[in-house]
Amino acid sequence: MGGILNGMRVVEGSAFVAVPLAGLTLAQMGAEVIRFDRIEGGLDAGRWPLAPSGQSLFWAGLNKGKKSVAVDMRSEEGRELITRIITGGGEDAGLFITNLRVRGWMDHPTLSERRSDLVMVTLMGDRHGRPQVDYTVNPALGIPDMTGPEGHDAPVAHALPAWDVAAGGMVVNALLAAERHRLRTGEGQDVELSLKDVAAATIGHLGLIGEAATSGRARPKSGNALYGAYGQDFVCSDGRRVMVIGLTDRQWRGLVNVTGTGEAMAALAAETGTDLGDEGNRYRLRHRITSALAPWFGQRDLDAVAAALEDAGVTWAPFRTVPEALAEDPDLSEDNPMFRMLDQAGLGRFPVPGSPVTFSGFARQDPEGAPRLGQHTEEILSEVAGLDDADIARLYDRGVVAGGARKSARDAA
Amino acid sequence: MGGILNGMRVVEGSAFVAVPLAGLTLAQMGAEVIRFDRIEGGLDAGRWPLAPSGQSLFWAGLNKGKKSVAVDMRSEEGRELITRIITGGGEDAGLFITNLRVRGWMDHPTLSERRSDLVMVTLMGDRHGRPQVDYTVNPALGIPDMTGPEGHDAPVAHALPAWDVAAGGMVVNALLAAERHRLRTGEGQDVELSLKDVAAATIGHLGLIGEAATSGRARPKSGNALYGAYGQDFVCSDGRRVMVIGLTDRQWRGLVNVTGTGEAMAALAAETGTDLGDEGNRYRLRHRITSALAPWFGQRDLDAVAAALEDAGVTWAPFRTVPEALAEDPDLSEDNPMFRMLDQAGLGRFPVPGSPVTFSGFARQDPEGAPRLGQHTEEILSEVAGLDDADIARLYDRGVVAGGARKSARDAA
Repeated sequence: MGGILNGMRVVEGSAFVAVPLAGLTLAQMGAEVIRFDRIEGGLDAGRWPLAPSGQSLFWAGLNKGKKSVAVDMRSEEGRELITRIITGGGEDAGLFITNLRVRGWMDHPTLSERRSDLVMVTLMGDRHGRPQVDYTVNPALGIPDMTGPEGHDAPVAHALPAWDVAAGGMVVNALLAAERHRLRTGEGQDVELSLKDVAAATIGHLGLIGEAATSGRARPKSGNALYGAYGQDFVCSDGRRVMVIGLTDRQWRGLVNVTGTGEAMAALAAETGTDLGDEGNRYRLRHRITSALAPWFGQRDLDAVAAALEDAGVTWAPFRTVPEALAEDPDLSEDNPMFRMLDQAGLGRFPVPGSPVTFSGFARQDPEGAPRLGQHTEEILSEVAGLDDADIARLYDRGVVAGGARKSARDAA
Repeated sequence: MGGILNGMRVVEGSAFVAVPLAGLTLAQMGAEVIRFDRIEGGLDAGRWPLAPSGQSLFWAGLNKGKKSVAVDMRSEEGRELITRIITGGGEDAGLFITNLRVRGWMDHPTLSERRSDLVMVTLMGDRHGRPQVDYTVNPALGIPDMTGPEGHDAPVAHALPAWDVAAGGMVVNALLAAERHRLRTGEGQDVELSLKDVAAATIGHLGLIGEAATSGRARPKSGNALYGAYGQDFVCSDGRRVMVIGLTDRQWRGLVNVTGTGEAMAALAAETGTDLGDEGNRYRLRHRITSALAPWFGQRDLDAVAAALEDAGVTWAPFRTVPEALAEDPDLSEDNPMFRMLDQAGLGRFPVPGSPVTFSGFARQDPEGAPRLGQHTEEILSEVAGLDDADIARLYDRGVVAGGARKSARDAA
């Protein structure tokens, strides 16, 4: 049945997380996504984590279901091939996402001479065009300062490249918005954004800039507490840890009820003269609240805690390592239709996710594995760049392109 | 000149981060976004951080430039009004994003009886429809376990609601993809995704599931180190801290050159028999590398470190608190055209971000402040729900709607 973006063709010139994730999102919604790389592979070809074979699980994860073309872009001929691939195709093509920032032959002014309705989305490091990565944007904007155990005296970086993920989403948003406009007007578009601006806008949207400006103070670290209301981690009798949420009134009442702490909370409210129905007061008094709740958790193992919280409809989760999550959580297995167990050569057997989005008019697409580097070189040179078999053979022979089964002009005979 | 989504109308029924952020992203690209709330405000109306006045900086940040309608949805009339607002309008309307999950009158089967081409995107907590929040999804999937100082024995939650931000981006992706399909076929769409599935898919895409499955081990915490290559934080002579990146070969060589540690690194490579040109080896030997680099940083203050690193083209950033970032970083000021200094009643004066995306065919839109709750009730009842003045007055009188200047039927006289 295909995906909702079937027919759309997007070319991706990328490395690392954000733009590859954008291409993956489009591919898993049904677009044909052609990623091009240098013949030796992109800067992310060997990015960790690696499988025991040494192959990159990272690269394989972010390039699933794409077509891979390997071209020597130091040569004039190679650059011409990439230009043809980017600018070729019908009205659903001419869409290019990149974080490579190559001036001249691969910029929008030059490419749009070849295809005036080209939509090109360029993700930069910062608005000045300088390289920045998630690991630098995050400390510059203050998030590690507010992350970590209460009282810890050093900044704590996030392990998840959250700004890359956010920027990848924004690349897709921008591409689809510009393509929508092109459908109506025929106009191409040169679209730019930067990782740092995505992060700076987001902290503004979340109120963090206003908080800093109006209070003049840095938000202190609060460990695993939910900021501004009640939510806390607790250790169960078997040493397992859970996160419990009392953000909304309903969640808060559920938590108090299941733990039988109604009287203790009433006493705390009376003693402090505060209304615990106010979410901010629950945050201010979180240490006292936690002390009142902790014995209930400490007297039960995870299974008993889980059963009671589920019964009471409390919003909660266990803390897990990733291997524990993989072993325990059906949401990371084929029980979840988003996942398919794949056995990929050089990588191993594990559940692979498709798109998290379902569309009522389309069957969910099974995830596909990643291509080998250059696996689709020949196909794309023929079908997209419009070369004939002899031309393709000569390009292989001279090492301008690589990958796939074809190795030289002799194979064309 | 307007934004690239000008003409599109999206209705938002939401609370907290993800769906409000999705609506904001659409609004800042030029769509008309109508957020409806209960008369007393949504569950997030008082969410922290707060301004000194007690008003929510969070709510104001996530609802900028939207139209606000306040309706009593417990009443049949109120539900009919919301139904009209969601299903009204021309071919660029009939777009609804929500995380409220109201069965019956506000679900897709019911609403599509009134408008068959309705595109509705519903964000759930998990795929089973249970409530989950960023604070529970994250520990369940293992990220806090790998976050925090090396050797720290407890999980460390992220302070940024990263999964909410990711899910908000995916809501926009899904809406624009479904609207694209509708433009071509006229078909509506019931679109679903969950916060937990967005997170589970993302950790799969990043290789974390493959890593857990093939190694069988949890990834250890590595503090502020860049995972899988070299990148580390250093303390300067004035106590300020910087993050320095040696991810690519070029970054690594630049870092070694500027710090004059070429001989030390060659000696380390010889002693250990490893090639530091391999990014994985740099990660494995990161403690030794850090020891060799640390004196250079410890002998210079931040200004001197910054000047030298900039000169050498090294990718780096200072660690800052948010107030420091606001004071020091021009990217968080009007020097950055994404920001405008706004003085908002009840909130204060600070830089407010617009969209991080620029489109060559459109001037950058200045950010607008958030509406007051119900500020646009009367306008939307008239223009979208198609009510006349007397009907509107009666709804105000009976308390079915609220907000804006209009308070009762007497004002209509």
